[in-house]
Amino acid sequence: MASTVEGADTALLPEFPRGPSMPTEQERPSGTWRVHLLLQISLPHLLRFQKTIFSALEKDPLFARSPGADLSLEKYRELNFLRCKRIFEYDFLSVEDMFKSPLKVPALIQCLGMYDSSLAAKYLLHSLVFGSAVYSSDGSEVLLECAQRTFSCFPSFCALTFRFLDVFALTELSHAVNTKAIRTTAHYDPATEEFIIHSPDFEAAKFWVGNMGKTATHAVVFAKLCVPGDQCHGLHPFIVQIRDPKTLLPMPGVMVGDIGKKLGQNGLDNGFAMFHKVRVPRQSLLNRMGDVTPEGTYVSPFKDVRQRFGVSLGSLSSGRVSIVSLAILNLKLAVAIALRFSATRRQFGPTEEEEIPVLEYPMQQWRLLPYLAAVYALDHFSKSLFLDLVELQRGLASGDRSARQAELGREIHALASASKPLASWTTQQGIQECREACGGHGYLAMNRLGVLRDDNDPNCTYEGDNNILLQQTSNYLLGLLAHQVQDGACFRSPLKSVDFLDAYPGILDQKFEVSSVADCLDSAVALAAYKWLVCYLLRETYQKLNQEKRSGSSDFEARNNCQVSHGRPLALAFVELTVVQRFHEHVHQPCVPPSLRAVLGRLSALYALWSLSRHTALLYRAERRCSCPGRRDRSS
Amino acid sequence: MASTVEGADTALLPEFPRGPSMPTEQERPSGTWRVHLLLQISLPHLLRFQKTIFSALEKDPLFARSPGADLSLEKYRELNFLRCKRIFEYDFLSVEDMFKSPLKVPALIQCLGMYDSSLAAKYLLHSLVFGSAVYSSDGSEVLLECAQRTFSCFPSFCALTFRFLDVFALTELSHAVNTKAIRTTAHYDPATEEFIIHSPDFEAAKFWVGNMGKTATHAVVFAKLCVPGDQCHGLHPFIVQIRDPKTLLPMPGVMVGDIGKKLGQNGLDNGFAMFHKVRVPRQSLLNRMGDVTPEGTYVSPFKDVRQRFGVSLGSLSSGRVSIVSLAILNLKLAVAIALRFSATRRQFGPTEEEEIPVLEYPMQQWRLLPYLAAVYALDHFSKSLFLDLVELQRGLASGDRSARQAELGREIHALASASKPLASWTTQQGIQECREACGGHGYLAMNRLGVLRDDNDPNCTYEGDNNILLQQTSNYLLGLLAHQVQDGACFRSPLKSVDFLDAYPGILDQKFEVSSVADCLDSAVALAAYKWLVCYLLRETYQKLNQEKRSGSSDFEARNNCQVSHGRPLALAFVELTVVQRFHEHVHQPCVPPSLRAVLGRLSALYALWSLSRHTALLYRAERRCSCPGRRDRSS
Repeated sequence: MASTVEGADTALLPEFPRGPSMPTEQERPSGTWRVHLLLQISLPHLLRFQKTIFSALEKDPLFARSPGADLSLEKYRELNFLRCKRIFEYDFLSVEDMFKSPLKVPALIQCLGMYDSSLAAKYLLHSLVFGSAVYSSDGSEVLLECAQRTFSCFPSFCALTFRFLDVFALTELSHAVNTKAIRTTAHYDPATEEFIIHSPDFEAAKFWVGNMGKTATHAVVFAKLCVPGDQCHGLHPFIVQIRDPKTLLPMPGVMVGDIGKKLGQNGLDNGFAMFHKVRVPRQSLLNRMGDVTPEGTYVSPFKDVRQRFGVSLGSLSSGRVSIVSLAILNLKLAVAIALRFSATRRQFGPTEEEEIPVLEYPMQQWRLLPYLAAVYALDHFSKSLFLDLVELQRGLASGDRSARQAELGREIHALASASKPLASWTTQQGIQECREACGGHGYLAMNRLGVLRDDNDPNCTYEGDNNILLQQTSNYLLGLLAHQVQDGACFRSPLKSVDFLDAYPGILDQKFEVSSVADCLDSAVALAAYKWLVCYLLRETYQKLNQEKRSGSSDFEARNNCQVSHGRPLALAFVELTVVQRFHEHVHQPCVPPSLRAVLGRLSALYALWSLSRHTALLYRAERRCSCPGRRDRSS
Repeated sequence: MASTVEGADTALLPEFPRGPSMPTEQERPSGTWRVHLLLQISLPHLLRFQKTIFSALEKDPLFARSPGADLSLEKYRELNFLRCKRIFEYDFLSVEDMFKSPLKVPALIQCLGMYDSSLAAKYLLHSLVFGSAVYSSDGSEVLLECAQRTFSCFPSFCALTFRFLDVFALTELSHAVNTKAIRTTAHYDPATEEFIIHSPDFEAAKFWVGNMGKTATHAVVFAKLCVPGDQCHGLHPFIVQIRDPKTLLPMPGVMVGDIGKKLGQNGLDNGFAMFHKVRVPRQSLLNRMGDVTPEGTYVSPFKDVRQRFGVSLGSLSSGRVSIVSLAILNLKLAVAIALRFSATRRQFGPTEEEEIPVLEYPMQQWRLLPYLAAVYALDHFSKSLFLDLVELQRGLASGDRSARQAELGREIHALASASKPLASWTTQQGIQECREACGGHGYLAMNRLGVLRDDNDPNCTYEGDNNILLQQTSNYLLGLLAHQVQDGACFRSPLKSVDFLDAYPGILDQKFEVSSVADCLDSAVALAAYKWLVCYLLRETYQKLNQEKRSGSSDFEARNNCQVSHGRPLALAFVELTVVQRFHEHVHQPCVPPSLRAVLGRLSALYALWSLSRHTALLYRAERRCSCPGRRDRSS
């Protein structure tokens, strides 16, 4: 029977059954936590949606769990393939539903990821990356043609996606982030109206391609487009058939295989491919960025390269925003495992007879509770950033080429490029802390913390190494300041994440005036300190960069020399500020009942202060520099 | 042909063969690195010894490697068993040789650990833990008797060790660190002159026991010794046969098995065991700590519990000292892998045409080089601490019951209890950084960084959770200060690690006076700062503890409330200081040639400053507190 507590349908989230050795008191102070989940963190319709998914998986023997099982690589990949296929068959999320309620996309991915990261990754790669690349190009025609030629019938989009659309091949063995150095070529031959896809050597082999290892039949291959006369126009995507769909044998000229065991996500078959002068029809070019006429002339709808680049930032961001969500779900699981263990595990106590739960120790709280707060703050941020991305993509789909749309793209790119590192690192460190805080039991495979750590690890790497991505964000902020200094422009962005910078000389004159610990339990205090810190770091980074350039460094050298000491902390502090700001606002919405606000407010303050404490040394140093006469000059 | 460079036999360490894409310059500035290795870090006789071991393994097909292979749990455990047996057959280290050249013990373990941590762990458990526990007790008689009854012949000590002596069972499912709460009992029955070993319930099952999962036939079981009249005398070790050596079936009353897959070290079969009223002869008690007469009277050679405890600290330390060495070897491997990758991997560059090795980027250097320095500093510390332990154990073996011997035991215990956390955490973080710094390639299983991380992880947990162990060290320092304050005692310890504290009020009056960056490149500067910091933290911790007690906290509460903010950083700063001090002295020995000292000195300064930088916020805060009038009171 569904009962209603403060308006929430608590039947959606029944009480946990009691374990044999749970502490008798303190464990369930009230039903508040459930109301909170229902009202604030998970919106009821999302919870209902997730419950449908979990119920379906629970009943399906294909999804039966064997924690800590010793699956072989082959068996695991086979199982993950079958499970992914089954998820498409369940068809949990229709296209209409997705448009009506976009948060169902991350909600679905979170369910799959909570079950198994490899499943979420395989599903995401099948349905989103390739799908979005293809469907945003006129090249979809050729795809449907191919499909019709290959399969006699394809009952639905989902089934088609799963059987046919497969992989997205950009990274090469020797190059990834530096896309300009990608070396696979696509020479156009006007005589046959074909492109010739070619890998010059093994370092140019496509590598790491998700889903390519075992079963992919077609790939979107990124190659340098060259037209007759050897004129090259940079990377463009081409659909290339790589395997025969009936036999799964490689197509002529294609060498394709599995790259082998990884640290985690071994249910996903990452592959490699090399192409020896493989000919594909002219229509295989996915032509949203640029096209080639039958005669061999290159044409592009974008006038300047910068505009073309701006549009492509949107698709870069979607990967990063997804990773934020994937990382946080791992942290959610780890924190839940470690806190439950800590509430039941008893060691030592005030007397020799009495042992207390380890969660009662200040040390255990200090180790674990900040990560609990981080889950709340980052999970909220992740959802809000996803909604921002939806706005961006809707603009893109409707052909919005306004300045605001371009600015929105840049702002989301800056936020995604720093929140992906923040979320993946927080999770990495949090899982490690949870693993250690559970002692030996945390080291048993069946307790899952190892799998979570291994599966989370690529979040630090793919879609760009975390440290390199942070440079995107610091560059964005430096660009805004340069614009302000040079043209007197205001700091304004569509999502308002940079608007506070407009007041930056004034902010830097502010002093930290809080006197009591109780005052600090309002996250507004940490927010003010963060704003000061970001202003300070932005000014210092800008000055340091100019100083480097004045002393003769090239732009390349100057940025490299500033990144460790200045750019990196600037980008991190900026995104932490944004996370804290959004969670603070969320907690202080008028609709949040006071009893909930008390709990959420403490989580908000804990996350904010804990994050800020990593910058303590910097704050002390900054204070000393700022109080030193002659140092108060503004950016120039 | 052996050539001689500055007196070193360089044939021991030939140049590496050139790889296909190594940078053409800068990679091999001179032969200095080899001389350095030969003269300074690895003493030539140790290097020769290690070369013998590696050459033997290289030629033996049983040790053929298949990087990133997908071994099943069963297969891996079987392989590791066979390899461990083979290592005993090779008999690399005779008992005489071990006494003559004790550093060969960690040298052998490092070789095995570099090959595979599971092998090193299995070997260590077989030969050291059990062996030392048994051989330091009169109980060895019963053991030899058992062996004679069980096997018709045992050709050598090594073979005997491997076939017979097996496991060391202390930890239970629900208790480990809190040994007083261990619940397995051993009731003495004078009627039959037997002990009855019993596990009251499943939470008292012995758990995590290395080597117990598959093949162990006998175990040293720690149980509460109780004599008639229900008088209990705490934990004592008993030899209990757990399996039939011919069939490997459990003995009557024993339930024994494998605990399943772990995050790493899966070549090692950790097991569990429960005992249902298993009777063992009176002589099964390993009686160095205490014995029971045939009539059932408890007798102990130790007059007071404190003395008995002091002796047992020695055996606790040996495990922790071994772990320091095991952790560092993992970091050595990880740093070598990441630096080689970074020297050959090229991405971006000053112009679009030219790509530079990623090691040239300040970011990559900032990420990796401190860990290179940490390897040098911690490896030296690990060896020196091992030699200190050898001194302690020699005193123990010769029956030295002097005050110095007891003090040495306490000092080594304090150093081992903090250096085990320092080494295992530095390695944990270092491997993670190396993994990420190698990008996607670091995520491929064949590149080994994942295995290193997984295999290093238990170093943070076994022999005591790192955070709990640090309390041992802070308690040691607080005890010394209390002794000084209450009895006017001097700070003096056999290894002199605490002697500087004698000058502590004076040290706290010192100011940091270094003005140039160049000056800081002498590790003496960081050393002075560390001494200041340890003095400051010791005084603050002592005051905070007393303040807690004055405000009504029990000793248990007071220590819990001080540990996060005070005791933990105190213990870490103290052991970092000791590591820096020892490496600094090592580098400045007169026998070190100046060209080498230049390089080693930079590594020493880098490690010292990098470690110290983690305390920067604390140094700023301390400076502010110390410069505030009225705060300069001494500990009271």
